[in-house]
Amino acid sequence: MDFSPNTAAILYWSTLFASVFSAAAGVIDARQKKFDLFGVMIIAFCAALGGGTLRDVILDRPVFWIGDPSYLVITWVGALLTFWVARRIELEARWFEIPDAIALALYTIAGTQAALMVGTNWLVASFMGVITGVAGGILRDILLNEEPLVFKGPFYATASWAGSMLYAVLWHKVDANAAVISTLLLVFMVRISAIKWNLMLPR
Amino acid sequence: MDFSPNTAAILYWSTLFASVFSAAAGVIDARQKKFDLFGVMIIAFCAALGGGTLRDVILDRPVFWIGDPSYLVITWVGALLTFWVARRIELEARWFEIPDAIALALYTIAGTQAALMVGTNWLVASFMGVITGVAGGILRDILLNEEPLVFKGPFYATASWAGSMLYAVLWHKVDANAAVISTLLLVFMVRISAIKWNLMLPR
Amino acid sequence: MDFSPNTAAILYWSTLFASVFSAAAGVIDARQKKFDLFGVMIIAFCAALGGGTLRDVILDRPVFWIGDPSYLVITWVGALLTFWVARRIELEARWFEIPDAIALALYTIAGTQAALMVGTNWLVASFMGVITGVAGGILRDILLNEEPLVFKGPFYATASWAGSMLYAVLWHKVDANAAVISTLLLVFMVRISAIKWNLMLPR
Repeated sequence: MDFSPNTAAILYWSTLFASVFSAAAGVIDARQKKFDLFGVMIIAFCAALGGGTLRDVILDRPVFWIGDPSYLVITWVGALLTFWVARRIELEARWFEIPDAIALALYTIAGTQAALMVGTNWLVASFMGVITGVAGGILRDILLNEEPLVFKGPFYATASWAGSMLYAVLWHKVDANAAVISTLLLVFMVRISAIKWNLMLPR
Repeated sequence: MDFSPNTAAILYWSTLFASVFSAAAGVIDARQKKFDLFGVMIIAFCAALGGGTLRDVILDRPVFWIGDPSYLVITWVGALLTFWVARRIELEARWFEIPDAIALALYTIAGTQAALMVGTNWLVASFMGVITGVAGGILRDILLNEEPLVFKGPFYATASWAGSMLYAVLWHKVDANAAVISTLLLVFMVRISAIKWNLMLPR
Repeated sequence: MDFSPNTAAILYWSTLFASVFSAAAGVIDARQKKFDLFGVMIIAFCAALGGGTLRDVILDRPVFWIGDPSYLVITWVGALLTFWVARRIELEARWFEIPDAIALALYTIAGTQAALMVGTNWLVASFMGVITGVAGGILRDILLNEEPLVFKGPFYATASWAGSMLYAVLWHKVDANAAVISTLLLVFMVRISAIKWNLMLPR
């Protein structure tokens, strides 16, 4: 099953774009800790590219940003811009909720897709999608020495997992473009509804 | 040196079984932090399969649970069961001490074995055994934002290291089955004695 | 571009030597946490060899200490000596500042060099140099459950990044030995000046 060239290009550019928002959200978090400029850039790197790095290392694929420096460039441009803006105006974390939900969906799709192409079982593939989607945020929180929010926040990982399972199931059955769009919508809607009504899993 | 088919099968099944107990012990720890259901499943994954994942990545072998989804299935079944039971009755951490000591021994053997088969030096192999045995617990504690217990607890890593050194020494000298059984006994006895008499290394 | 055999040998031995000081500095930190002997050895391992391990895993090269046990041996000899001495006399962290700055420079060079030899872009290579230089210290602080000092300390990562960029730029242009020496001097001088005058990046 192949993507149409358009879908492949849209996925590439939108994932690159998603890195900017993940990086920005990481900078917002790091700011409260009084990290210096370099610390902020490392946090942004982990938040934006950490999940995909872990995915590629576990799947034994070439790490995606090693061969394409655009990812580092755009992540750091996003981080520096946010750092610069954040010293001038008060950025609120909730402004990033919608782009962050889109980024979560894109990373989830990219991760599940990568695992399926290596030929893993659907359960393993869906878990690799979740790792790609959430490990960046976990890494960021570990570096900030905080309890990872992803374990407590409203349906963050759950949205990712629902999406990656849907994608893994659809992959062999429907058109690739349709699989991408339905997964995007599912992850986005689960995540945004959960934030809006503050849904929680049992503890 | 080869295992008898029986030993190989016993090792496979018992390691799979060991994952249930590591997962369960991880859930017990996560419970006090009020993690949600998904958080608990990630903690269980790290506790049960994190050490072996790190081992395979460092040795540049295919990560063991990528090709065999049984590990993910059994880890999460164990985690969900424990999560369900823990909401009804008070599970005490000490009930897991004996299965946990057995899991430590099995992981240590599997890790040392994997490194020896890649052809590493005995010192490196024994350290890979320790990584496989203890890194899961370290990862779990990092995600829970606690100081890793393994560095302070009674002889946890020491039991693993003693066992992995014994196994690395015995490997080329005696029958594989004998090497497995003596390592199992050594790790188990060191660990259980240390808990019973609260033995500590110098600090 | 090749090193003269002398430079290659000097780099190998000095990096091995650098591991002793990183390990020692890790032990000094771990001591305040009342870790046991084994915990200290794991901390020393992460501090001394963690950055290079991460670099090799990300670049998909064989992990350097797997094939050459000298690294483990010298790291642990350094850790055990420091542990032993630290129980007798009060070691002050600032005695390690100069050897630690040299270690930072050597790790930075080794990391950038490794990435360039795999054929990465200069930006990626310089970032791999920083990872090799600073990830060990970050790992150590994560295991000690502290906020990574590298994000706040005076120009630690900045010194490494300045050096790795210089090295990546010089690599194809000048003699390898000249590249090594100028990078060593740059990292060392930036780091030591920053400590002396307590320079800070904007936060």
